[in-house]
Amino acid sequence: MKSVKEIISDALAAGQKTLSEYDSKRILTAYGISTTQEILVDKLAEAEVAAEQIGYPVALKVCAAEVIHKSEQGLIKLGISDLSELRHVYESFALKAQSLGGGVLVQEMVKGSRELVIGLTRDAHFGPCVMFGLGGIFTEALGDVSFRVAPLTKHDAKEMCGEIKGQKILHKIRGLEPVKMDLLSQYLKHLGQIGLEHPAVREIDVNPLIVQDGGQPVAVDALIVLEEPKPQNFEAKSVAGGLDKFFEPKSVVVIGASFTPRKAGNDVIQNILANEFGGKLFLVNPKGGELLGHKVHPSIRDLPEGIDLAIIILPAENTPQAIRDCAAKGVKAVVLAAGGFAEVDDHGESLQAQTLKAIRDTGVRAIGPNTSGHISTPHHFTSSFFPLGKIPRGNVSYIAQTGNFATHTMRYIATGENFGVARVMGLGNKLDVEESEILEYYSRDTETKAIFMYLESIKRPLRLCEVARKVTRFKPVMLLKSGSTAEGADAAVAHTAALASDDRIINGALRQAGIVRVYQYSHLFLAAKAISAMPLPKGNRVGFLAPSGAMLVCLTDLCCRQLELAVPAVEEKTRHYLQKISPPFIRMRNPVDSWPAAATKGVQFAYREGTEALLEDPNIDAVVMILMITDETGVPPLDFVVDLARCYPEKPLYVTFTGQKKHMDNAKAFLEPQGVPTFPLIEQPFEVLSILARCHQAMIRP
Amino acid sequence: MKSVKEIISDALAAGQKTLSEYDSKRILTAYGISTTQEILVDKLAEAEVAAEQIGYPVALKVCAAEVIHKSEQGLIKLGISDLSELRHVYESFALKAQSLGGGVLVQEMVKGSRELVIGLTRDAHFGPCVMFGLGGIFTEALGDVSFRVAPLTKHDAKEMCGEIKGQKILHKIRGLEPVKMDLLSQYLKHLGQIGLEHPAVREIDVNPLIVQDGGQPVAVDALIVLEEPKPQNFEAKSVAGGLDKFFEPKSVVVIGASFTPRKAGNDVIQNILANEFGGKLFLVNPKGGELLGHKVHPSIRDLPEGIDLAIIILPAENTPQAIRDCAAKGVKAVVLAAGGFAEVDDHGESLQAQTLKAIRDTGVRAIGPNTSGHISTPHHFTSSFFPLGKIPRGNVSYIAQTGNFATHTMRYIATGENFGVARVMGLGNKLDVEESEILEYYSRDTETKAIFMYLESIKRPLRLCEVARKVTRFKPVMLLKSGSTAEGADAAVAHTAALASDDRIINGALRQAGIVRVYQYSHLFLAAKAISAMPLPKGNRVGFLAPSGAMLVCLTDLCCRQLELAVPAVEEKTRHYLQKISPPFIRMRNPVDSWPAAATKGVQFAYREGTEALLEDPNIDAVVMILMITDETGVPPLDFVVDLARCYPEKPLYVTFTGQKKHMDNAKAFLEPQGVPTFPLIEQPFEVLSILARCHQAMIRP
Repeated sequence: MKSVKEIISDALAAGQKTLSEYDSKRILTAYGISTTQEILVDKLAEAEVAAEQIGYPVALKVCAAEVIHKSEQGLIKLGISDLSELRHVYESFALKAQSLGGGVLVQEMVKGSRELVIGLTRDAHFGPCVMFGLGGIFTEALGDVSFRVAPLTKHDAKEMCGEIKGQKILHKIRGLEPVKMDLLSQYLKHLGQIGLEHPAVREIDVNPLIVQDGGQPVAVDALIVLEEPKPQNFEAKSVAGGLDKFFEPKSVVVIGASFTPRKAGNDVIQNILANEFGGKLFLVNPKGGELLGHKVHPSIRDLPEGIDLAIIILPAENTPQAIRDCAAKGVKAVVLAAGGFAEVDDHGESLQAQTLKAIRDTGVRAIGPNTSGHISTPHHFTSSFFPLGKIPRGNVSYIAQTGNFATHTMRYIATGENFGVARVMGLGNKLDVEESEILEYYSRDTETKAIFMYLESIKRPLRLCEVARKVTRFKPVMLLKSGSTAEGADAAVAHTAALASDDRIINGALRQAGIVRVYQYSHLFLAAKAISAMPLPKGNRVGFLAPSGAMLVCLTDLCCRQLELAVPAVEEKTRHYLQKISPPFIRMRNPVDSWPAAATKGVQFAYREGTEALLEDPNIDAVVMILMITDETGVPPLDFVVDLARCYPEKPLYVTFTGQKKHMDNAKAFLEPQGVPTFPLIEQPFEVLSILARCHQAMIRP
Repeated sequence: MKSVKEIISDALAAGQKTLSEYDSKRILTAYGISTTQEILVDKLAEAEVAAEQIGYPVALKVCAAEVIHKSEQGLIKLGISDLSELRHVYESFALKAQSLGGGVLVQEMVKGSRELVIGLTRDAHFGPCVMFGLGGIFTEALGDVSFRVAPLTKHDAKEMCGEIKGQKILHKIRGLEPVKMDLLSQYLKHLGQIGLEHPAVREIDVNPLIVQDGGQPVAVDALIVLEEPKPQNFEAKSVAGGLDKFFEPKSVVVIGASFTPRKAGNDVIQNILANEFGGKLFLVNPKGGELLGHKVHPSIRDLPEGIDLAIIILPAENTPQAIRDCAAKGVKAVVLAAGGFAEVDDHGESLQAQTLKAIRDTGVRAIGPNTSGHISTPHHFTSSFFPLGKIPRGNVSYIAQTGNFATHTMRYIATGENFGVARVMGLGNKLDVEESEILEYYSRDTETKAIFMYLESIKRPLRLCEVARKVTRFKPVMLLKSGSTAEGADAAVAHTAALASDDRIINGALRQAGIVRVYQYSHLFLAAKAISAMPLPKGNRVGFLAPSGAMLVCLTDLCCRQLELAVPAVEEKTRHYLQKISPPFIRMRNPVDSWPAAATKGVQFAYREGTEALLEDPNIDAVVMILMITDETGVPPLDFVVDLARCYPEKPLYVTFTGQKKHMDNAKAFLEPQGVPTFPLIEQPFEVLSILARCHQAMIRP
């Protein structure tokens, strides 16, 4: 018997692009994946013996290296029930098989009404990825499949099976035995192994993998696609580390400092001053002179040696030389603000290549080009050239392939919300510094409690996931990965030069890495607001209070139908207390109808007692209070909310409203600076809890 | 041959609850639905002849009236390939068949890898409903099915086939011919006919309906479940009409007027006065005297004859007598504010029965009980007892099985938004007036442009749909139907006594009726705001401008992935103009990156020209402007936005923001009173467009 290596190398030597079904299955078998009993023959007499041995009914298939889509080409005959039919079909197949240089496969008929697909694809970014899903015609019709990056753990295999919509067919259904999940998990893991151990395997397609009525999955058809192994395409870095020069520079120079207000080279200085940067600040402009109280050096050559960080705000053309000049003066890190590189045209692409060469030649670390800069509030520093004023300090950090979080969205956060940031990195075109390095930096950063990412492409996907796998065990990491529809990706071209992997593969890789995906831009600050002030929920079980039955019902629907949150029953003790504080006509439970108690015993009493009861209940992981405030029904002092949040620091407490707008605004202004997040729309706290509960789930994953 | 009627009546006479597969299929055949060729036998010799006639392989099935779940019970043998196997299987089936009082069915084996399910269920509310979906094991595993209420139009049948997730299997796939859709549509329509013509048919289950490789669907198994026909359970109304007494009363009396501020019987008077009601206002309280400038009558008996409307704010116990007293004085309509009826306990249920009897005996029209009242701004009137002040007048109307829209949510709308309402009806327990009547009233109401409904139960579903079918052709109707998850329905019990039909049936019925379902409470006012000021979009093609590439990408993803909106290419002429106003380095298209032009030519110029280009483009149905406003980048006067909205009255134009919060607030305060809706979060205008585009789609449905 040939070894797997030999089967593959022989096929490659013969110029084959695919392995025959027979050879494909020999490889599967070698990796412990059950396949149909089958015998490859090239004579009728052999076929007759084979069929006898296997037992009728049998299937006949034309089997040759380059044969794919056998069904569509009429190269399969199933359910051959006797010798005469066998002879008849063999006749018609023999010639085809011969002309294709193959044989005829006599195969057992596997009985089972459940068809799955398992497979492998070698992703350009993630390497070998294993697929699982509904098989047969449904693979194409429903696309109900999930992916994981190899190697798979047992948990990965189990999780990806539970992710498909049709996962019920894996259980006991319609009198069929449940699928033997241990075996199925093994198969998935072993497919990944094939991909890792044999770089020439580009794709494996096992479809159908039929589940026999006893629950045993069997590979009924299989196809392995080969390619000459390519060298791994991971860019070598000349330098790594040194990111503290960005986030904690002791000295900074602005190259391209401008005397004109509202120019980037002026705004950046104003931002640095407004944030009370404590290090040394140097400015460079050929005009020399003085600017905003600082001496202006006419050229880089005039600067002292060993400045930590240079912010280069020059046209794209002048950027490569400026990098070299800075490096010559001992600068260790540069921020490259200019646009006009690869995101624009061919000329820009050539400038980008020159810039990269300057970076690699000099060994500086660089962010950008085409970045709006970065922020580091614990160090009172920013390189943003968008007018920001004093940036509020906080404990969430952003990694963004957009300037927004160092520009207008930051401005919204600073003026419309009551939380702050620790670090923000606007990645720009990611010539040098990319997201995985920043994620690693944030993972060690004691100022950073939670990490939010916005990415249109992932430069080193495997490394990002490797880093994330560790950090997500102790810090929540959320990602808005955009450009995931064809149209979105199309819109992305205008933005930064980006290519997206198949969205399903990314989904699988992120799940493995513990990164929680979000789908709305606004969630990047709404969830940040929530996590800034409150702990992660330790589960998905929400308790909430509303002054309206309709809100109770709608929000329960929302939690259960869309958000994967539970609204569980509370303990009898809790229920009893809720009943005690309410008029007898209302039947109390979770969610809590807060108005009967409020109408009889006052708004403050009803909300305080109801909220505390939920916070104390062991069945509840997080509490949302929907506060009704109008002049006439009562506007209670809200200190009690702040007190409750302080007394129960282990459970998130969020507030939202109904009633009069001015009181909502006042309540926000009162509560948020004291650590209680509020949300204008009643759905928002639940959306945020859904995201953060998934973060916690990721944190405690096996 | 027995007729369909005879088959059913004989079975009922014999006490059968189900028809045998054979009889079920005879009925299908009579309605033009293809079934497998099959012969019912009770002797081996007959079986042999039958198999010979049909041709091997054949299937054998035990066939008897009360046999269901044949597969699970081992009463089916497929793929019998020859005489000896036939004999063997027949032996084992014959006894079982005999003991069950049936025979053995010899059946052709139908070839086809696509299994569908079609069926019928007699819904307690909607009557016979037709189902379509993925068949075989997937019916249970995926629940990928859709429903329509019988009778079905061809459009209904086509639409329900296109609604399932696995609809691709109906098309050409994997070398298989597309399903013959005309036949399939016929089958679905005819199933509905069976249900309409034979009230004893409770359920029909055709699973699988196998699609032969040529595209012909064939019923391979079938089961008809019977029941003694029940009389239709639709409550007869003693009176209908007369709703103008609620919405345009000339004289009103408050029974239970209160001298104590913040009591319901006081607040209702304050509301009536604040809204400058122009008719006559009477008050009743045993104390007599004067209240808020009005004489107080000590009893109903002291009132003049023929007052249009009485607002009865009395305890539940006193409500039935008050209705009778009012009626005796010629009152035509009553609002019943008291709670404490069926929504609470058995005693309440008995009070509710007494109340209903009083209504029916007297022939008054009544809303409630357990309602917070209603609103009619064109008539300057409200019966709400929640402090509202002057309610802003507008052109949207609500029908709500909650008081919220006549209480705190109305208060939010009045204080936080810049649109108003025409009519609001808080339905309460719906003893008399229910949603279908209000919908009909609003359909004729020239003050009402769009209708928003919140319902937890539907009292007369068929009538609601019948009314909606007409009104949705010229007015948009949106519905938040809550209590649609088990947990939500559970929460609903605390609120009003309500029972939900299967959510999928409701979905189908609403689609047929042109009602657009929404899923978030907040959308009830966000969409109202949008439709108040702007036309419906005439399609789902959105054009938008944002000052950030990241927003362009994220929102395009959102539109295409979640919202069923398209972000199409604009005409070359438009593209060319967008390019002309922008710096050459940026490649312009839809969505529009507004910032390069804004940075070089000013915010106002860039947004005005870009927006106008999109508004003029024939490929675009609606435009969203994401305006960046900060002190430093520019806060343009926004008259240009108002002008654009006026110049292009045929297309919706919505505004949202990024940047500085105070400018966003100012822009909202400036734009909305002038007819341009704004939204705080960038996703919201798109969510609203998605809802309204579906309303337009419903309006132009065949």
